Amino acid sequence: MTEIQQLSGDRPVAIVGAGLVGAGWAIVYARAGLAVKMFDANPQTTAKAIPLIEGQLAGLRRHGLVHEDPATILARITPVATLAEAVDGACYVQESVLERVDVKRQLMTDLDALAAPDLIVGSSTSGIPGSAFALGLGISPRVLIAHPVNPPYLVPVVELVPSAQTSAATVAFADALMRAVGQTVVHVRKEVEGFVLNRLQAVLLREAWALVQEGVASSEDIDKTVRDGLGWRWSFMGPFETIDLNAPGGVADYAARLGPLYQRIAESRTHEQPWDDELIRQVEAQRREHLAHAELETRRAWRDERLMEFAARRAPARTE
Amino acid sequence: MTEIQQLSGDRPVAIVGAGLVGAGWAIVYARAGLAVKMFDANPQTTAKAIPLIEGQLAGLRRHGLVHEDPATILARITPVATLAEAVDGACYVQESVLERVDVKRQLMTDLDALAAPDLIVGSSTSGIPGSAFALGLGISPRVLIAHPVNPPYLVPVVELVPSAQTSAATVAFADALMRAVGQTVVHVRKEVEGFVLNRLQAVLLREAWALVQEGVASSEDIDKTVRDGLGWRWSFMGPFETIDLNAPGGVADYAARLGPLYQRIAESRTHEQPWDDELIRQVEAQRREHLAHAELETRRAWRDERLMEFAARRAPARTE
Repeated sequence: MTEIQQLSGDRPVAIVGAGLVGAGWAIVYARAGLAVKMFDANPQTTAKAIPLIEGQLAGLRRHGLVHEDPATILARITPVATLAEAVDGACYVQESVLERVDVKRQLMTDLDALAAPDLIVGSSTSGIPGSAFALGLGISPRVLIAHPVNPPYLVPVVELVPSAQTSAATVAFADALMRAVGQTVVHVRKEVEGFVLNRLQAVLLREAWALVQEGVASSEDIDKTVRDGLGWRWSFMGPFETIDLNAPGGVADYAARLGPLYQRIAESRTHEQPWDDELIRQVEAQRREHLAHAELETRRAWRDERLMEFAARRAPARTE
Repeated sequence: MTEIQQLSGDRPVAIVGAGLVGAGWAIVYARAGLAVKMFDANPQTTAKAIPLIEGQLAGLRRHGLVHEDPATILARITPVATLAEAVDGACYVQESVLERVDVKRQLMTDLDALAAPDLIVGSSTSGIPGSAFALGLGISPRVLIAHPVNPPYLVPVVELVPSAQTSAATVAFADALMRAVGQTVVHVRKEVEGFVLNRLQAVLLREAWALVQEGVASSEDIDKTVRDGLGWRWSFMGPFETIDLNAPGGVADYAARLGPLYQRIAESRTHEQPWDDELIRQVEAQRREHLAHAELETRRAWRDERLMEFAARRAPARTE
């Protein structure tokens, strides 16, 4: 028995909500050898997910990111017609339904009625804390947030965020499951707005928009600053390791040297909204100079190819 | 005559300040085929720079990042004993002396007395605006900031920041020179604290420190969030292109969808100093769990190897 079979008790995983995010998760679990049942309240969504998954598996195979025949992996994914069928016998539900509190609350109530007493539920929400929709039910101790980056079969990070009622055993199970399927687990210990990943992205973006607004730099030059500068180290080290290596004495030395500058930078920003309509029009125009609206889709395919190449290069490096 | 020979009028470039940054710049210019004269007020610094450059050139050669014999490149770099020798006949000075206003001001005064009437001066300063040390001299219109990321022969971005007195012709020359030697130019149009690159790094780091302080996540988990999540796209796209591709309708669509969340995240932060001594001790302890103080130097060599690999992979991609 493999680690993952032991962990799952050889039971399937259920995907509830089969849009882009749910389909991406189906690939993660099926690639790892698990049986996957896939349900969406809209049967057309499930029907669309299957060819999408097929296409992505072909790409993964081409880049050496899966070692089995894509058809073998696809055969592990079974679309089902009802929520009851999806959760029947499942060890884990990956919830990726609409980002609305009422929709998620209704699903938790339904799962509470249907689920086996040991079923664990992970929600893919990027912005709604579990305490907003998963409290006060029998199932509440077994619900947490498992927020991926899209697409999760390429970019491995997943944020685990317990609600006020999530049990420690649930966090431990989700941690073990995510690691077993190849994800990188980040533990978010408080339900803060945006969790960790979107908070970090938000502060950088907010400063970037403000710099354009003030005429300090164009959006293209800001992209260059990150793409040909800051982003290199961050793509294999992260910000703390970066600064730890950037001062002779390590991170404390760095903090002593650069803390005052960083504080001055922070104090030079107010909380005024930098995304007004005029600014958005300006950045939209700058972007469209570089990429026409009609080319967005082609460029997304280019991005996905780059991400596959990136993942292929990272795969061996991660075992170092 | 090559583009770079035309641009330089076949005249050398002078490196003034031969520490890590100056030595890095010497590699950039010599690799591009330019004659380089290298001066430091402390002759021992220049003497140390030569073997450092030799070692780096060997690494660049190993990774296929230079196509000439390292000895040929090294032979273009001539240490000189005086500032007058360095600037004699030079088309451009790359200033990388100590990060102190008085030291830089003295150098500008000296250059003003020595320099040919068409000599351009780029300062490597990461934090001092040109208006603080380069105004009111005959040479002032020909001085600007050319701030690199370390090491500049691997990470291509360079921020060009004119002072209140820098001429447009100086900016145009520096832009052309930087492009000709393979750097990526970012135009910073106002002298803001930290320019663009350090502002973007600062806001992300500040949020990262605050998240550790509040017990939301460990420094290691924050590193994972960037290294295995956010950093992937940023290493080949930059933040604006990332969000432009992340909403069906492009960047304006993204702003409409996520603006409110980002504003809430911004409003949840105050300007209180997050880098207090207790927090610094805590992060220092977290980092030392992963990397002992004695291993910092080994890990820096590991980082430099990763950066060389990264540069080698990017070299062909940049021509797309």
